[in-house]
Amino acid sequence: MRAVLLDEKTKMLRIGETEEPDRSAGDVLVRVKATALNRADLLQRRGLYPPPPGASPILGLEMAGVVEEGSGPWKPGDRVMALLPGGGYAERVRIPAGMAMRIPDALSFEEAAAIPEVFLTAYLNLFRLGGLKSGQTALIHAGASGVGTAAIQLAREAGVRTIVTAGSQAKRDACLALGAGEAIDYKAGPFAPRVREATGGRGVDLILDFVGAPYWEQNLASLAIDGKLIIVGTMGGAKVPELDLGHLLARRLQIIGTALRTQPKERKEELTADFAAFALPRFASGKLKPIVDSVWDWNEVEAAHARMESNANIGKIVLRITDGSEE
Amino acid sequence: MRAVLLDEKTKMLRIGETEEPDRSAGDVLVRVKATALNRADLLQRRGLYPPPPGASPILGLEMAGVVEEGSGPWKPGDRVMALLPGGGYAERVRIPAGMAMRIPDALSFEEAAAIPEVFLTAYLNLFRLGGLKSGQTALIHAGASGVGTAAIQLAREAGVRTIVTAGSQAKRDACLALGAGEAIDYKAGPFAPRVREATGGRGVDLILDFVGAPYWEQNLASLAIDGKLIIVGTMGGAKVPELDLGHLLARRLQIIGTALRTQPKERKEELTADFAAFALPRFASGKLKPIVDSVWDWNEVEAAHARMESNANIGKIVLRITDGSEE
Repeated sequence: MRAVLLDEKTKMLRIGETEEPDRSAGDVLVRVKATALNRADLLQRRGLYPPPPGASPILGLEMAGVVEEGSGPWKPGDRVMALLPGGGYAERVRIPAGMAMRIPDALSFEEAAAIPEVFLTAYLNLFRLGGLKSGQTALIHAGASGVGTAAIQLAREAGVRTIVTAGSQAKRDACLALGAGEAIDYKAGPFAPRVREATGGRGVDLILDFVGAPYWEQNLASLAIDGKLIIVGTMGGAKVPELDLGHLLARRLQIIGTALRTQPKERKEELTADFAAFALPRFASGKLKPIVDSVWDWNEVEAAHARMESNANIGKIVLRITDGSEE
Repeated sequence: MRAVLLDEKTKMLRIGETEEPDRSAGDVLVRVKATALNRADLLQRRGLYPPPPGASPILGLEMAGVVEEGSGPWKPGDRVMALLPGGGYAERVRIPAGMAMRIPDALSFEEAAAIPEVFLTAYLNLFRLGGLKSGQTALIHAGASGVGTAAIQLAREAGVRTIVTAGSQAKRDACLALGAGEAIDYKAGPFAPRVREATGGRGVDLILDFVGAPYWEQNLASLAIDGKLIIVGTMGGAKVPELDLGHLLARRLQIIGTALRTQPKERKEELTADFAAFALPRFASGKLKPIVDSVWDWNEVEAAHARMESNANIGKIVLRITDGSEE
């Protein structure tokens, strides 16, 4: 089959021939129609985020496509989407039956490919780890990112108020349109006083953070008593110069490190089933929407990566996997 | 009524006359028969741990006694024990009906007074915050302390294996007798390699820590993937010189600051009800035992405090509240 491969000499991505997906990866063979970009892809191609043991070395943590060989409830022709440990930038993948979700009829493959990583990440962190309940408030950094736009919508559906940070008016408008209660321009000054103000001095119950060390002090200052700081990424740096455990104790704060990709298969399947029950009817009815920034043919994978590197996207960057006959 | 008061000049504790307990503290009036010491008492008398707003300035975070004025299910003559926001070193306290627990017939007041703080603290942290399940492993620092001896027993009853640290052979023997799977002498060298060894290299699912900064690195090194470090105290210092958020992310670790005393009343009542359902039948049958280090007449409160300061105790130090007629 064909897949996006890394040219070791030029360090450029290009489509080439490679082996069919490993049978040990799962019983359902899927013809991939679309995949989507994640920041982990940018790190992985630079050698900074090696795939977990046993995972495909091919990039791509999610996909939408058509079943070619079924298993369990899945039959050839079924439209499915799934989280992947890798291998999405390819013509075919194999997945365990428990990882597949049925694509609602109303969604295209390109829209469906924009769902698994960001919505499952947001669902895991807001509800499973974060235990957010109706009436609470969450601060979502990078509100216009893939995970951010998913988190705003899931929170809204669960009755949770969101405050977001985003660096441009277009991004803040997009967040507000999705249901964010407040959108803070982090370039206009420290966000913590704005968060305090927006919560009547109380602070937020949960923070979803991708930035890490540069936001550490402000994040702690933005949390309410019993608040949870959920660290999903450390894009701005990981080393915090000092931690005062007394603050954690006095305000009963929780610092939670989390990652979706490294979770064991059983837990991913359980999460997928929970999420599907909550979210698929809402995608079918249009209450939840995959936020697609742009769709690129997979021949344009380098340009698509450049767009993510530039932080210009609002929502997900999708690759359409075209077969030879369409070229 | 009489209560233990702090002499502002000598900084010594002595029994003296003071006002009856504030009616706003609750509807059940209890004649206190016994109270027990907590480290917070040592801090509070030095002015380092002021009572929360609205709480009695009198020391004493727990008590056992006899109901004098009932409310809800409680009638005069009922033997009850309860967590207190303060005021236990006194002849009488008022408590909300929802905070009282019935003392099992098999237990004396001195034994019952040794239960609320340490068992509720252990229950909150192991199960509510820690989510420990049968088959998991916990590292309990200060295993022979009040909270430690309670945590070992509650974990054992829930099918959770415990590894403890303790500084003397007598303390380690006491922990093993209560059901600890392993007891580490923290004075004999770093505990982290011993924990790794005792878990086949995997690490533990939860750590209950009172020490703080000096144990930070070793605690992180002792955690399994998805492990939780629960900080209940910072007796050795609170300032950690560096925190690498990347470690938390890569191993999906959680750092949880916690305190029982500052929790809102509703949550304490809910916790008390949950704990009572789990634990009171086990105290009645003898499966759970309050661990009483020593019992002192409240005239000897200074000597009792000195014993806690010296770290010599195994389990709880109890004060018997004797009335004038017995003197």
